[in-house]
This record gives sequence, C-alpha cells and structure tokens, in this order.
Amino acid sequence: MSIPQKGRLMGVSLGPGDPGLITRRAWEALQGPAHWTYPVRRQGDSSYALDIVRRAGLSLPAAHTPLVFPMTHDTAILARYWLQAAQTALDILATGRDVTFLVEGDASTYSTFTYLVRSIRALDGDIEVETIAGVPSYHASAAHLGEPLAESDETLAILPAGYGVDTVERLLPEFDTLVLLKVKPLLDDLIDLLVRRGLLAKSCFLEKVGTPEERVVRDVARLRGEKVNYLSLLLVRNPDRPRGALQRGCRKKSAGENA
Amino acid sequence: MSIPQKGRLMGVSLGPGDPGLITRRAWEALQGPAHWTYPVRRQGDSSYALDIVRRAGLSLPAAHTPLVFPMTHDTAILARYWLQAAQTALDILATGRDVTFLVEGDASTYSTFTYLVRSIRALDGDIEVETIAGVPSYHASAAHLGEPLAESDETLAILPAGYGVDTVERLLPEFDTLVLLKVKPLLDDLIDLLVRRGLLAKSCFLEKVGTPEERVVRDVARLRGEKVNYLSLLLVRNPDRPRGALQRGCRKKSAGENA
Repeated sequence: MSIPQKGRLMGVSLGPGDPGLITRRAWEALQGPAHWTYPVRRQGDSSYALDIVRRAGLSLPAAHTPLVFPMTHDTAILARYWLQAAQTALDILATGRDVTFLVEGDASTYSTFTYLVRSIRALDGDIEVETIAGVPSYHASAAHLGEPLAESDETLAILPAGYGVDTVERLLPEFDTLVLLKVKPLLDDLIDLLVRRGLLAKSCFLEKVGTPEERVVRDVARLRGEKVNYLSLLLVRNPDRPRGALQRGCRKKSAGENA
Repeated sequence: MSIPQKGRLMGVSLGPGDPGLITRRAWEALQGPAHWTYPVRRQGDSSYALDIVRRAGLSLPAAHTPLVFPMTHDTAILARYWLQAAQTALDILATGRDVTFLVEGDASTYSTFTYLVRSIRALDGDIEVETIAGVPSYHASAAHLGEPLAESDETLAILPAGYGVDTVERLLPEFDTLVLLKVKPLLDDLIDLLVRRGLLAKSCFLEKVGTPEERVVRDVARLRGEKVNYLSLLLVRNPDRPRGALQRGCRKKSAGENA
C-alpha cells in the first residue's frame, strides 16, 4: 500500500463578521472538499467564524471538527490544547485530505491560526500551509464609519489596551490613529484619558461590526462602567498631534554627507 | 420633468494585488451597472486598481472615467485636482447613476478615496457614500510570508518611513511589529538601523505582493543603494523588546482604590 500524500492546511480568513467581506479566494476554499476545522473556546461552544460562514449561506459539511483553544493565559494548559488541536489536524492531513481552519478577521493577526501552525510544524515540519489574508476588524470599522483609518502620511498603532493608559498616552504624540483592542479591563480609565486629552469626540467604540449584534457607540463616555464584549475595539483619531517633517521622494544628500 | 435621485458613491477596495483577495461585496459591486472611476497619476496613465480587476477576468465597462490624483505634495495643485475629480464624479451621480471608485488595498487607508469623498462632501453634502473594506497590503504580506503580523498581546505600528530613522528607533521598545511604508527615500538608513539593532534577520521587504511583479526580499541588506517601488513595504519583527505587564480580563482593584 502506498502512503497517501499529506494534505495541505489552509488558514481561511473570513473578515470580522460581514459575510460580504469574505474574499473570493476564501470563498473558493470553502467550496472545496477540505475538512473544516474552526476554533471554539470549549468543546460544544459555538464558533464565531462558523457563524460568519453560515450567514454567508453555507452549511457545515459532514467533515468538520471544532478545535479547542481555551481562553486562558496559563501556558501549560494552552500548550496542551494547542498540541491536541495540532494532532487532530495532523491526523486528517495524514489521510491526504486538505484541512481548512476558519478564522474570523485575518489569520495573521491576533489569531489562533498562528498557534495551530506553530504546533503543527513542531510535530511535522513537512506540512504545506497556505494563509489566505482577510479584512481586519479595524479596517472594516473605519469603512463602516466612513472615516479614514490613515491618510497620506499618517501613522497607525494597533495595540491591546491592557498595556495600560500610560502606554496609550505615551504613544499619542506619535500616532494619528490608535486602535485599542481588548479594552474591557480598563475602559473607564481609557475614557478618563480621552476626556483629559480632548479626544472623546474623535473616538468611537465598535463591537462585532458587520454582524447582527453589531454595536457602534460614538458617545464613548456612556460606556462607563459597562462590561463590553471581547470582540470590540476603540478607534481613536488624534488630529492635533505635533508632526515632524517627512523625508519624501529621493532624498537630496547635503554636501557634507558621503554620496 | 422630475429630477432623478442622485446616485451613490461606492469606494470599492480591491486588496493589494491578488484578485483572489477581492471581497465578495466588492465583486458584487463590480458586476453592477455603476459607472467605474479609478485613480491615475496623470491623464492617460495606467491604473494599478484597474490592473487588479483585469487580472480577475473582468473588462472595463463602457461607462468608466479615470480621475487624476497627481503625485505631488503641493497642496494648491492637489486641491485643484481633487475638486476636479469630485466634480466629475458628481456630474455622473447627478444623473442618478451609481459611481464606484476602484482602489487598491483598503479604501480607508492611505487611499485617494478619502480625498475624493471629502471633496465631494464639500460640494454636495447629500451624496450617499458606501465604503467596502479591503485586505491591506501588510496583512497580505504577512499571509504571504506565512508569519504572524501580530500575536495574542502584541502591538503593531504602521507608519511612513519618512518620519525618519530616529522615529522608527524611538518606537522599537513599544512595538512587536513595525510596518514601514514609503521606504524609498531612506532605505539605506533603515538598513543601517536594522543592522545596528540586530533586526535584519527579522525583517522582510515586499513589493506589489500578489501581482505578477511581486518581489519578496528576505535579505533586506542587499537592497542597499536600490531605488524601490512606491508600492513596497518593510515588515520588521521585533521579538526581543521589553514588554510590560498587561491588565487582562476583569481587573481586580486593590484595597486602596475606590471600587
């Protein structure tokens, strides 16, 4: 008996929630015969990625397996689950079948796909992996608001708010737009900062943009004391930052410099 | 005679070059009866956005108009061209026909669409605008490399390199990934910085990713002295930055604080 050629792993980015933001390449991958896998927090839990696909009108194929990625920062527990997810995927890939891993947003950004690939590579360095890029939530949020995320020479920072209000404030002189993720634990402190720096009117809170549960709050101050969803972000425009001169085009070297 | 209802303006993001990264929503917009507009640098120039659509197998409809957005930083010249582009679009919208504006990458990010919308709104505040988000070049670049752009708690900065090597260096302690755009005028200085900070092996140069002219240079040092294309970027991973503690989940307030 010949050993079948191993299947290929595909990270299929689905965009942040609106099924219209699924790319043509991802859509094609969803039509193929690959075995579907998708992240869940606990066995039996619903999958946000799968919801997007369902709202696009597709049904779950017979060949599908949820992979558990728990919400914990305990690295020992995480390592065990990552290894288990990788082994599950590898068992399917070993039969020669392709495996798609469905992810909300973009597979290269804050995604469990990174851990899945790393764990799979640790067990088997030969697996072919394709990552299909997707629309990130912050780009979909800006489009939804009809406002630029960054213009011409502007700078853009994307960071988990958990680094603290001091970090956010330290970055204000450098960035024209800040996207703050995972704002839940310090939303009130962030609101205080925005008030203090006169940025409240330039900020917007967006949650699950493009889904039926979408929430857009322009008056961010009224979120004080609220527990917000994990899939939310704070978009802060910072129009009055002091901006240095830019070096543009082909720089002219001064006489004193080496050519 | 009744005055026709004005058409709608749609910013159709096409992703950075691979026609597979066009979203379903953008694809649908391209099939519709809207009048196509697209940015060119000079009258008669080719259009990068149109190239993506052509490589997707679509042909230019009879109703199409290039809009000129010149490459200059002279604000008086820019304002004149923006106004002219807006007036051209408005004349079509006034007939009741929808207008799509095709843009490479994402319409909310470093895009001429921002100026078009602003100029149109200045002339006519009533025009309905829809922005269809797209895959940005930096996300497509990370997917192409099969590497994360940002993991779990990581920070990501996107900035035109023209702010200078000092600015880039100042941001290194804060960011796990830096995406440097418009690197042409100071590529050699950036390479020196990457060498000095031991980040050369963690950097990659990507140009027109997903197109037939795609160029991926992992050995960034060999670009020294080269004139690179405008549609290029430098992706810098910064794995050894000192990272502060994060506030996660529901923050526990200490006894000294007000609950």
